[in-house]
Amino acid sequence: MKESPASDTAADPMPSWAEGPAKSAIVQFVQSVTEKGGKDYVPPEERIATFDNDGTLWVEYPLYPQLLFAADRMKELAPKHPEWKTRQPFKALLEGDMKTVGASGMKGFFEIWLTAHPGMTADEYAEEAGKWLRTTRHEKFKRPYVECVYQPQLELLAYLRAHGFKTFIVSGGGMAFMRPITEEVYGLPPWQVVGSSVVTEFQIKDDKADLVRTEFQIKDGKADLVRSAKIKFFDDKAAKPVGIYDHIGRRPILAFGNSDGDMQMIEYTTRAEGRRLGLFLHHTDGVREFAYDRQSYVGALDKALGQAEANGWIIVDMKSDWKRVFAFEEAE
Amino acid sequence: MKESPASDTAADPMPSWAEGPAKSAIVQFVQSVTEKGGKDYVPPEERIATFDNDGTLWVEYPLYPQLLFAADRMKELAPKHPEWKTRQPFKALLEGDMKTVGASGMKGFFEIWLTAHPGMTADEYAEEAGKWLRTTRHEKFKRPYVECVYQPQLELLAYLRAHGFKTFIVSGGGMAFMRPITEEVYGLPPWQVVGSSVVTEFQIKDDKADLVRTEFQIKDGKADLVRSAKIKFFDDKAAKPVGIYDHIGRRPILAFGNSDGDMQMIEYTTRAEGRRLGLFLHHTDGVREFAYDRQSYVGALDKALGQAEANGWIIVDMKSDWKRVFAFEEAE
Repeated sequence: MKESPASDTAADPMPSWAEGPAKSAIVQFVQSVTEKGGKDYVPPEERIATFDNDGTLWVEYPLYPQLLFAADRMKELAPKHPEWKTRQPFKALLEGDMKTVGASGMKGFFEIWLTAHPGMTADEYAEEAGKWLRTTRHEKFKRPYVECVYQPQLELLAYLRAHGFKTFIVSGGGMAFMRPITEEVYGLPPWQVVGSSVVTEFQIKDDKADLVRTEFQIKDGKADLVRSAKIKFFDDKAAKPVGIYDHIGRRPILAFGNSDGDMQMIEYTTRAEGRRLGLFLHHTDGVREFAYDRQSYVGALDKALGQAEANGWIIVDMKSDWKRVFAFEEAE
Repeated sequence: MKESPASDTAADPMPSWAEGPAKSAIVQFVQSVTEKGGKDYVPPEERIATFDNDGTLWVEYPLYPQLLFAADRMKELAPKHPEWKTRQPFKALLEGDMKTVGASGMKGFFEIWLTAHPGMTADEYAEEAGKWLRTTRHEKFKRPYVECVYQPQLELLAYLRAHGFKTFIVSGGGMAFMRPITEEVYGLPPWQVVGSSVVTEFQIKDDKADLVRTEFQIKDGKADLVRSAKIKFFDDKAAKPVGIYDHIGRRPILAFGNSDGDMQMIEYTTRAEGRRLGLFLHHTDGVREFAYDRQSYVGALDKALGQAEANGWIIVDMKSDWKRVFAFEEAE
């Protein structure tokens, strides 16, 4: 099963999903929108499915991988920045006090995200992020982050694609952080990955005088984009439908999230004509993964949990709906 | 030949291209990057090709279609806006004086673009734009704009895709304007169309009191995005590489433009390691299309024309390199 979820399709295309209401809702939805001549039929080019990433496709607990990546970078840079030793949330970050970092909330997360990598080129950042995600191990699972992805979701992505869907990530995480590994991990090329971004600037150097234009700064010998410390787009809450519109240009018919930050994406998806499906992953499994929801400082699932039933949104219960969480677990 | 460029591939996949240096450069480039084991080989997932739209894939002369679309909308709205009668460039626009509109330059174009459609939902705008492009006829060709696309470029897009390339539009034009027709006209789904955008806001209405949140305005009975009069992203010049990075996330190996606004896209594409190809379409055919370059108020090709040779960029001469410009021309 580690090799390829697709190899299981002969029997059950989603063997890691337990039989139950969540799996039934998915299978019935896919059957109804793909049944030619059926009243809910949707042509393949309109079969758009969007997935949040942190906590929906991969582990976000006890802290978003992107913040830990930034933390590692800031530890490297710390000797040059003595002021970080007394300034929160940097102080807590350098001391490994993740609880205090978590308590600094979105404002603190942003400061860390934006402080860690300005001045790097896009190519350098992609190289660093990819290397980090392939080699840094999650503290609980002792596996590289690229393996800390949910096996049932890989099967669901493959199942949807096998039925003509185009699948996309729509994440609050940085596009530049995820994209170096999304193709190998999820089968999603970078243009199917929507997320947050910082302002970047095109820079070019050429030794022919007439080609060095004043509007560009000069750096190395090739054209590249250089990251700034300014946020451009934070792809969360009411910005998620905007990100979908700008990047995908077509309204999803299925969307899958795990926190209140995904509510507007689910609403954009489900509050429109035709048959639609909205799902939230509920982290209920403290043994195989983590158990958290309403009060969590990452991925809080509160309002959406209360409003799911009235809206027909499916709450996927990790503990009971997933037979297996990770590919690296022993096969049953 | 009108039916499908692909049907000609047995003999020549690009029959509308004359034999000559431009066609040779394209064919040699594609052969070299697709030859397994060759020194210039590029794996399919890295074969990204980007095309400007206005003046590169479809007609932009005497005025960008998007401006004419905005003009038609403003004529409709004019009775409610007497102040437009005395204010430039609106006055000229309403009087059909396109020379004065053109002379108002990018600043004037923006005012028109941003004044025409605020308050419309994304779905409404898409419907209007699609309808306009399918029904409004170009003043010279007497054909709907969806037919005023260059046949040699349709063949080139198909040829590249047949060789494993992923093709994208990267245009200064509005994404929302192009996307309703790019799939049927170019075979490009909306997420393969990068362009300029306005700020949009997610809005939702629900009659259950606890679901009407203060951060949303209320409009109709479904979730949608509403267009504002504020520009979000102008995808021209040094912003084109930024648009490519944000939307595609991978550097092109081939890029095709037609104006100085495309220079940075071509530089981003060609100033990097490995074999790369940059092309500019030169509008030299005043009979079959239009002849314009350095001094034009739309699609000025000046600096790039001067620097092409030194940089190894290919100048495609419409008159001599294209045997046919439009599919609606008589077959030779």
